[in-house]
Amino acid sequence: MNEFDFINKLRRRVADNFSPIGRPASLIRGIGDDAAVFKAIAGKEVVVSTDLLVEEIDFRRDTTRPELLGHKALAVSLSDVAAMGARPLWSLISIGVPEAVWNSDFLDSFYLGFFELARRYAITLVGGDVSRTPDKIVIDSILIGETAKAGAVLRSGAAPGDQIFVTGFLGDAAAGLRLIEHGARLPLRSKTDGSTQANSEAEHHRLEYLLLRQLQPNPRVGWGLLLGEQRLASAMIDISDGLSSDLNHLCAESKVGALIDAAAIPIDPLVTELSGRRALDPLMLALHGGEDFELLFTVKPEMVARLPARVDGVSLTRIGEIRGADHGVLISEGSRTWNLEPGGWEHFKAARGRT
Amino acid sequence: MNEFDFINKLRRRVADNFSPIGRPASLIRGIGDDAAVFKAIAGKEVVVSTDLLVEEIDFRRDTTRPELLGHKALAVSLSDVAAMGARPLWSLISIGVPEAVWNSDFLDSFYLGFFELARRYAITLVGGDVSRTPDKIVIDSILIGETAKAGAVLRSGAAPGDQIFVTGFLGDAAAGLRLIEHGARLPLRSKTDGSTQANSEAEHHRLEYLLLRQLQPNPRVGWGLLLGEQRLASAMIDISDGLSSDLNHLCAESKVGALIDAAAIPIDPLVTELSGRRALDPLMLALHGGEDFELLFTVKPEMVARLPARVDGVSLTRIGEIRGADHGVLISEGSRTWNLEPGGWEHFKAARGRT
Repeated sequence: MNEFDFINKLRRRVADNFSPIGRPASLIRGIGDDAAVFKAIAGKEVVVSTDLLVEEIDFRRDTTRPELLGHKALAVSLSDVAAMGARPLWSLISIGVPEAVWNSDFLDSFYLGFFELARRYAITLVGGDVSRTPDKIVIDSILIGETAKAGAVLRSGAAPGDQIFVTGFLGDAAAGLRLIEHGARLPLRSKTDGSTQANSEAEHHRLEYLLLRQLQPNPRVGWGLLLGEQRLASAMIDISDGLSSDLNHLCAESKVGALIDAAAIPIDPLVTELSGRRALDPLMLALHGGEDFELLFTVKPEMVARLPARVDGVSLTRIGEIRGADHGVLISEGSRTWNLEPGGWEHFKAARGRT
Repeated sequence: MNEFDFINKLRRRVADNFSPIGRPASLIRGIGDDAAVFKAIAGKEVVVSTDLLVEEIDFRRDTTRPELLGHKALAVSLSDVAAMGARPLWSLISIGVPEAVWNSDFLDSFYLGFFELARRYAITLVGGDVSRTPDKIVIDSILIGETAKAGAVLRSGAAPGDQIFVTGFLGDAAAGLRLIEHGARLPLRSKTDGSTQANSEAEHHRLEYLLLRQLQPNPRVGWGLLLGEQRLASAMIDISDGLSSDLNHLCAESKVGALIDAAAIPIDPLVTELSGRRALDPLMLALHGGEDFELLFTVKPEMVARLPARVDGVSLTRIGEIRGADHGVLISEGSRTWNLEPGGWEHFKAARGRT
């Protein structure tokens, strides 16, 4: 298979997935030209996100599976578009693989996972690029979405008094990563075939759940859409780096401070249980863990009553309040209050001794 | 510098470059959110292209310079958008670099070259992603453009009888690549400091010109815009893989054949001269060389008289005519005529013995 055969195969796959009913009417041209072409709906805003996933840094071939990676490549971008309060529509995937991967069934499995998630949200793959690499896999996931008439929800819209919310639970993905670092792999082996990874079927399921929260995250597309369309959120960001970092990003863009309540942060009981047995601090996982791909957003006090309790089965938790900028970004735990410094994932820490 | 400092530095640089006059009115949000946000103009079409550049495959750090690479990353995407007959507006750059490169001045120089070209066409950098890599640099260049009211020029619009044109000269970039493969580097050393790369100042300039055609290509933005806005081209593609491959792509999408005249192909006299001395075939460089980033397009016979002779100093040459699909894609040279098989660049050739 040469790269043009590959591209034509993808085109057929896109056609099989969506033609003709699921295809958005405003897509003029998908795969097969120098660029994808679409027509935006008048009055709406277009959002574009890009996420680079690099082997050995953002994932390892021996700790994930190609179909999970295909899912995750799209999921991280869906999370970005959800954080703008927008409807995801069109994806482009730039992918570079070494020759041996090209000649394996890696890409077939990768796109299997990709298309499964794409189908769930009626995303059309409209373009991309393919390149050879010397030895590592690299994926750039580009996603285009469209806002409701009201426009995108930015990071910069929070004001003092706004209430701070997060969807779902925090810390799961970080707990999953710890499990992987300690040797857990999917599919999990049960104790009967010689592994000691899980002591019971119930624990087996719990561990698998946490691993999948890391390897196959579910972006909060429904929440993002609802918050954007009904204009319920004043500011929003997705939690990719970690609550501590992402709350600081949101506050910096809005030029505000915040006070969050440690006791209110929704930590999965699975994480608390696992942490107890492995001498981890569940609050640290929830604050600095990253990759939960939950939504962090602010709501004006008078709008809070309009928030639904759940969307797509995912709950909502109030964790604090926006304050003035001079207040700083604080967290209180019982009688103690401290500065919540960004402690999440960074690709590059500040080099020591440099200016 | 951590990655957030880096992103803020880029934001300031974008502001320095464009604020407030050059900034398109319809950009709602650039760098600094989960996604870039813009408003499309009603009735126009939006085009999106993505180009992945991988170290060791698409470029080598020891044969180019960071500022040339920054130029080229944007140039290849400008060429894609030009090939849609669209006006380029917004760029996103996803870039992955190893730690040592991060701690060098590579990125400063890269963005110097990027912004120099961006300024020429009033492109705003509106987003991107940054990642660490184990050891190689990888760049994904995403460019968004907007068509005239008439809509995008697709590869699929050619019909029998349409005349085939190319901008500029072909084979230059391939000749430049041959020079690099034979050890030529920028800046070229002149004979006086011991090098035998160039025999005279005139030759020095000629070699440098060919090297730059490979390392710092100039996309045909003006031609693309004119052909799109005045609806002069019935189909268009940019020559990135090579004339032979790209003409075949255009014909396949339009479901037509073509006959081109070898003698009409515009080959730079510099390439002919160099080829004579190095036992290269200039026609082969022009047909299969790739990376010229000229535009290849078709024009209905009644529209040919409306074509300008030059745009931005770049000339135009008629090289053949579209025929019916059963005619195939042919090239004639004197009394000989043969099938023009795609012979340009492929990242992955069809593996032998595989089905």
